[in-house]
Amino acid sequence: MEGPGALLVVLDMVGIFAFAISGGLVAVRKRLDVFGVLVLAAATGLGGGFTRDVLIGAVPPAALADWRYLAVPVAAGMLTFRFHPALGRMERLVLVFDAFGLGLFCVVGALKAMDYGLGPVPAALMGAVTAVGGGVVRDLLTGRVPVVLRSELYATPALVGAALAVAGESAGLPTWAFAVPAAAVASTWRLLAVWRGWNAPKPAGSPST
Amino acid sequence: MEGPGALLVVLDMVGIFAFAISGGLVAVRKRLDVFGVLVLAAATGLGGGFTRDVLIGAVPPAALADWRYLAVPVAAGMLTFRFHPALGRMERLVLVFDAFGLGLFCVVGALKAMDYGLGPVPAALMGAVTAVGGGVVRDLLTGRVPVVLRSELYATPALVGAALAVAGESAGLPTWAFAVPAAAVASTWRLLAVWRGWNAPKPAGSPST
Amino acid sequence: MEGPGALLVVLDMVGIFAFAISGGLVAVRKRLDVFGVLVLAAATGLGGGFTRDVLIGAVPPAALADWRYLAVPVAAGMLTFRFHPALGRMERLVLVFDAFGLGLFCVVGALKAMDYGLGPVPAALMGAVTAVGGGVVRDLLTGRVPVVLRSELYATPALVGAALAVAGESAGLPTWAFAVPAAAVASTWRLLAVWRGWNAPKPAGSPST
Repeated sequence: MEGPGALLVVLDMVGIFAFAISGGLVAVRKRLDVFGVLVLAAATGLGGGFTRDVLIGAVPPAALADWRYLAVPVAAGMLTFRFHPALGRMERLVLVFDAFGLGLFCVVGALKAMDYGLGPVPAALMGAVTAVGGGVVRDLLTGRVPVVLRSELYATPALVGAALAVAGESAGLPTWAFAVPAAAVASTWRLLAVWRGWNAPKPAGSPST
Repeated sequence: MEGPGALLVVLDMVGIFAFAISGGLVAVRKRLDVFGVLVLAAATGLGGGFTRDVLIGAVPPAALADWRYLAVPVAAGMLTFRFHPALGRMERLVLVFDAFGLGLFCVVGALKAMDYGLGPVPAALMGAVTAVGGGVVRDLLTGRVPVVLRSELYATPALVGAALAVAGESAGLPTWAFAVPAAAVASTWRLLAVWRGWNAPKPAGSPST
Repeated sequence: MEGPGALLVVLDMVGIFAFAISGGLVAVRKRLDVFGVLVLAAATGLGGGFTRDVLIGAVPPAALADWRYLAVPVAAGMLTFRFHPALGRMERLVLVFDAFGLGLFCVVGALKAMDYGLGPVPAALMGAVTAVGGGVVRDLLTGRVPVVLRSELYATPALVGAALAVAGESAGLPTWAFAVPAAAVASTWRLLAVWRGWNAPKPAGSPST
C-alpha cells in the first residue's frame, strides 16, 4: 500500500477506535453486558463507514474485506469493558472520543467519496454523513436523542472538516499536508463548542405542544 | 433532459421539499436549533429516496450527484426555521406536508424502480418504501412512533398510488397522464383518512402485558 | 433450482416467516392496527436480509425480485393478526419465533455472503448481522431496547451458528449436512439462554449517571 492510502487507512482505524470507545462507554453507562458492549462498540465504530460505503457503492465495505477493521472495534469494546472508569466522567469521555472520531471520519469519508468519483459538494456531504453516522447508530440503539440533533455544534464542524479535505485534495496537496489538520479543526471546533457551551440559534416564537 | 424525465425530477423535488418541511416542523416542535432543523429536514426529505436507491442499486443516489437535490431540503429547512408558525397548528401542517410528499414519492419511487428493471410488484413495493422511508427516519430520529405504524391509513395509500403508477407505465401511457393523478389519489386518501379519522381494524382480544 | 440452493431458499423463507411472526406479535402487543401489524411483520422478516444484501452488493435484494419472498411476511402478518393468542404468553412466543429466525438467518446469511465472495470471517459476521438485523428493526420501530443489546445471549449464538455454517461450507460438506444442525445449535443455545436466564458478565464498578 502506498503512502497516502496507508495514511488514510490508519486515520480510518483510529476513527473507528475512537467511535467504538464512545459506543462502549455508552453501553457501560446503560449497564449492558459484555456482548452488548462489544455490539454497540462495533456498531458505533463501523456504522458511519458502512453507511458511506453503501451510498457510494463501495460494497462490500472495506471493513468486511479486511479483518483488521473488525479487530479494531472488538479491541476497543474489550478495553472499554475492562477499564471503563467507574467515575462520574463517563459522559465527558464519550464526548471526547466522539469528537475525535468525528474529525477523522469527516476527512476519511470525504476523500473516499472523491476516490469513488463523487464531485466536491457531494463528497463533502458524504464526509459529514460518515462522521455523523456512527453517533446516530449508537444513540438510536440506546434510546438517546441523536447527538447530531442536540443543541451543540456537531454537523457543522464535520461538514467544514470534510470541505477542507476536499479542498486540499482538489488542490493536489499531499494527503499528510491537509488530512490531519482538517481533522484537527473539526475535532477541536466540536470540543470547544461543547466545553464553551456554544449554541446555535433556536427557532423564534414558541411552538405549541 | 427529455419530457417525462424532467417531469419526474420536478415531482421528486417537490416531494423532497414537502417531506423536508415536515421534518423541519417536527424539529421546531422539538425545540432543536437551526442545524438540527436543517439536518432533520434533509434526513426526512432525502431518507426515502436514499433507501430506494440503495435497494435498487442506483448508487451513488441521484441526490449526491446533482446539487439541486441538496439545495431543496436545505432551502426547505431554512424556510421552516424562519417562518414556522408559532401557533397551535404545527402538527396539522406536518400531516399535510407529509401526505403531499407521500403521494409524490410513491409514484416517483415506483417509476424509478421500474426504470432499474424491477418487476411490477417489487416496483410498487419500492414506491411505498420510498414514500414511507422519510417519515420513518424523521420519527425515529426524534423519538416518535413512526407514522407508518400509527392508527390511520398510511402504507395503503402509498402502495395504491405506487400501483397506479406502475399500471400507467405498464400500459404505455405518457407520464403526465398518470403520475400526477396517482400522486393525488394517494395524498388525498391519506389526508381524508386523517381528517375523517378512518381507522383500520385492530387485533381482536386483549393481549396481556 | 438445484438441491442446495433450493434448501437455502426454503430455510430463508422459514426464517422470514418466523421473524415476521415475531414482528407481528410485537405489533399486536403495541395495539397497532392491521396495517401496522403487516408493516412490522414485513420489516422484521425482511430487515436482516435487506441489510445483508445491501452490504454485500446483492441488489436489488432477492426479496424484491421474487414475489414469494413478499408473500411470506404478508401471510405471517395476516396469520398473527387473526390468530394471535389473547393470553399472557405473547412475549414468550416472540422469543421463540425470534430464536428460530435467528438460527436460520445466521446460517443462510453466512452462506450467501460466501457466495458473493466474502472471506470466512466477514461471511460469519454477515451471517450474524443478517440474524440480528430483523430484531433490531422491529425493536427500533416500536421503541423497545434492541434485543441484541439486552442481557441474555443473542449475538454470540448467531455468530457461532454462522461460523459453523462457514466451516461446513469451507470443508466442502453438502449443505443439508451442516445447515440445519448449525441453525439448530444457534436457536437452541439462544432459547436455553433465555429459559435458564444465562447472563453474560456486566461491567464491574458502578458508572455514575
